[in-house]
Amino acid sequence: MNQRSEGITALLLEYARAEPPSDVRAVMELSVLDWAACGIAGQAEGGFGPWAAGLDGQGEATRFDGRLDTPAQAALVNGTLSHALDYDDTHFAHIGHPSVVVVSAALAVAQTQGGGMARMVDAALIGAEAAVAVGLWLGRGHYQVGYHQTATAGAFGATVAAARLLGLEAEQLRHALGLCATMASGLKGQFGTMGKPLNAGLAARTGVEAAMWARAGMTSAPDGLAGPLGFGETHHGAGDPVAFEWRMGAVSHKFHACCHGLHATLEAVRDIDLAGAKAITVHTHPRWMSVCNQPAPDTGLSAKFSYAHVLAMAAHGRDTGDIAAFSDACAQDPALVAFRNRVRVVADEGLSEMQARVEVDGAVHNHDLDAALPFEARAARVRAKAHALVGDRAEALRQAITRGDLERFAALLVPHPGQ
Amino acid sequence: MNQRSEGITALLLEYARAEPPSDVRAVMELSVLDWAACGIAGQAEGGFGPWAAGLDGQGEATRFDGRLDTPAQAALVNGTLSHALDYDDTHFAHIGHPSVVVVSAALAVAQTQGGGMARMVDAALIGAEAAVAVGLWLGRGHYQVGYHQTATAGAFGATVAAARLLGLEAEQLRHALGLCATMASGLKGQFGTMGKPLNAGLAARTGVEAAMWARAGMTSAPDGLAGPLGFGETHHGAGDPVAFEWRMGAVSHKFHACCHGLHATLEAVRDIDLAGAKAITVHTHPRWMSVCNQPAPDTGLSAKFSYAHVLAMAAHGRDTGDIAAFSDACAQDPALVAFRNRVRVVADEGLSEMQARVEVDGAVHNHDLDAALPFEARAARVRAKAHALVGDRAEALRQAITRGDLERFAALLVPHPGQ
Repeated sequence: MNQRSEGITALLLEYARAEPPSDVRAVMELSVLDWAACGIAGQAEGGFGPWAAGLDGQGEATRFDGRLDTPAQAALVNGTLSHALDYDDTHFAHIGHPSVVVVSAALAVAQTQGGGMARMVDAALIGAEAAVAVGLWLGRGHYQVGYHQTATAGAFGATVAAARLLGLEAEQLRHALGLCATMASGLKGQFGTMGKPLNAGLAARTGVEAAMWARAGMTSAPDGLAGPLGFGETHHGAGDPVAFEWRMGAVSHKFHACCHGLHATLEAVRDIDLAGAKAITVHTHPRWMSVCNQPAPDTGLSAKFSYAHVLAMAAHGRDTGDIAAFSDACAQDPALVAFRNRVRVVADEGLSEMQARVEVDGAVHNHDLDAALPFEARAARVRAKAHALVGDRAEALRQAITRGDLERFAALLVPHPGQ
Repeated sequence: MNQRSEGITALLLEYARAEPPSDVRAVMELSVLDWAACGIAGQAEGGFGPWAAGLDGQGEATRFDGRLDTPAQAALVNGTLSHALDYDDTHFAHIGHPSVVVVSAALAVAQTQGGGMARMVDAALIGAEAAVAVGLWLGRGHYQVGYHQTATAGAFGATVAAARLLGLEAEQLRHALGLCATMASGLKGQFGTMGKPLNAGLAARTGVEAAMWARAGMTSAPDGLAGPLGFGETHHGAGDPVAFEWRMGAVSHKFHACCHGLHATLEAVRDIDLAGAKAITVHTHPRWMSVCNQPAPDTGLSAKFSYAHVLAMAAHGRDTGDIAAFSDACAQDPALVAFRNRVRVVADEGLSEMQARVEVDGAVHNHDLDAALPFEARAARVRAKAHALVGDRAEALRQAITRGDLERFAALLVPHPGQ
């Protein structure tokens, strides 16, 4: 084991026993609420019903489709369903979606192997930190060559989260990480298919299985992540140095159910009444021009890639945070279609991919997604998004998280929960 | 989809609908018997009991530990247990162990999703051919960089085998192969740990899941194996051209429960009475000198890496095909220890890794493992090996295979089968 390799594995062991600071933990609670809302909506509208219905286990871990299952299989199903709409949180350092993987794993283990809500949130948080750290250690090249980092780095995070809840010793956690190294997978070639959400579910299952199997005495390579013939070496990992740091405070929540390239624009005009606007000019990074500048979308799906249409929705009071708002009817609504003509989009090399400048009848409105929202503002937005997705259940979920009531929280995840 | 990429996926589709020739099929039947014997012995002596005991599903697929489980989980458990002793068959073109993965997958699907013994054997055979083809397509570089080809290429073989039994349409099989591409994993860094057999079990499960999930309507990348950002591109695959050909006739069965480097030597003196030999000189490929030339082993495990000791066993009538023969007591037996002094081992650049030349009191005996055994001789050896591993159950298993009785075959796999 060389120094470089010992570095990342030692770091993961350090996260596994760390006590999370309260401000980062508060953000993780928002991510748990956000995860729940995305999963409930993903179960209803994600198209994974027939697949999930074919999976059948025995256990006490809650699945979004209402079944109870083994922790491993519940993690698989929930990781997939909560990523089905691609509306869950993102960490840009990690280049991936941390919560779909780690919360799915942590909840399943906490429900069946011990640990209430507080321990579940702690475990999910240190798992997310571990995933981000592995993502940074693997480096951009790993993602560029074709690995879906949400799943590959995420599986290691899920392993740390599950190991924390199971109370694994350091040596057992090393074996768990080694098992994860030989199981972790997920390709970017799956983007645009059901394989993308599935990757997240598989990563959550891998974490649960790696930790549970190590506890059952299964052994693995001493440093399967960073050692010789290990995950990093085989999977184009750069092995970049990573310091111990809490990074989940900078996680990004998605507040519009459309392409990320439209978000800065929608945020820039969030407090502006566009109804009477005559001429709107959107300045955006050149990259987005080929991604989300459809001038005349006629389906709900294509409307998610149209500056003109989402601004028409904003002008007409349609909630762009609501998945259901992006319907074919909305895309074809004559009033909205007419409004699109007022919108012009121009590329601007001076902006980052996270920035937009929107001119509304001469007045300029800027937004930068990289500028962090103050916590209270972010909390209000996450709650509003959850309400748009799941209605009044959002507030009940929030209270269950705040009160530390894991049982109630899990009961609220299923279709038609009882009172 | 470029021509090269379409090549391998089109080839797998061709295997999926091919009718196996009877001579290759007869070899596959031997491999099925060999797999069963290795799995029964692996369940008893492989050390995976506590791990398997923690896995619990509902289904009708037989596991070597006697439980009935879902097809996916039975494939996981059986693939792991049948590779636990590393005594199962090998294909040198594929650089891997085909049967542990494909038979584990095919049996589980045949038992629960329809298909008797004949269809199971056909499916396992075309799955094995598919695995060897993918192994050839990936090329040696994939193995050298650190991937455990038994598992990676094997998962695609298991997918084809399961798809055949499920009767998937070509389009569904493409999706199944794409799902397999994003799930397949397995690192050589696990060699020497429980992670190595686990890799085989995971590959068997991946094949079953990929095929069943594609049938349930899950979609994936159009050419996840060979297309852009697909498995080959990300996993150091060479994309070597591969022709349609039946290659499983050349599969190699292991007849001695010790390091492969000792096999040619043991075969060379198989018909020689060594008891009274005064001086034995073994000529072997230089590579083996550092691998299996322990002069004075004192444990059963180290005896598996000793020319001197296995020849002493042969001279004293100990069955080197019997796992249990390699005990600590055997390694320390004074008569055998004394015999070792008669053995000298020399490196010979002129031999291949598969060849040995053994001089016994001046008489020269050669063997080349690459020279195929005539079918009847091979069949007799496989039966004798199975008998050494599982006693009289070997003959009952053979009869169940010959008579096409899948139910009886499965019933014989479990501990203490009833009559």
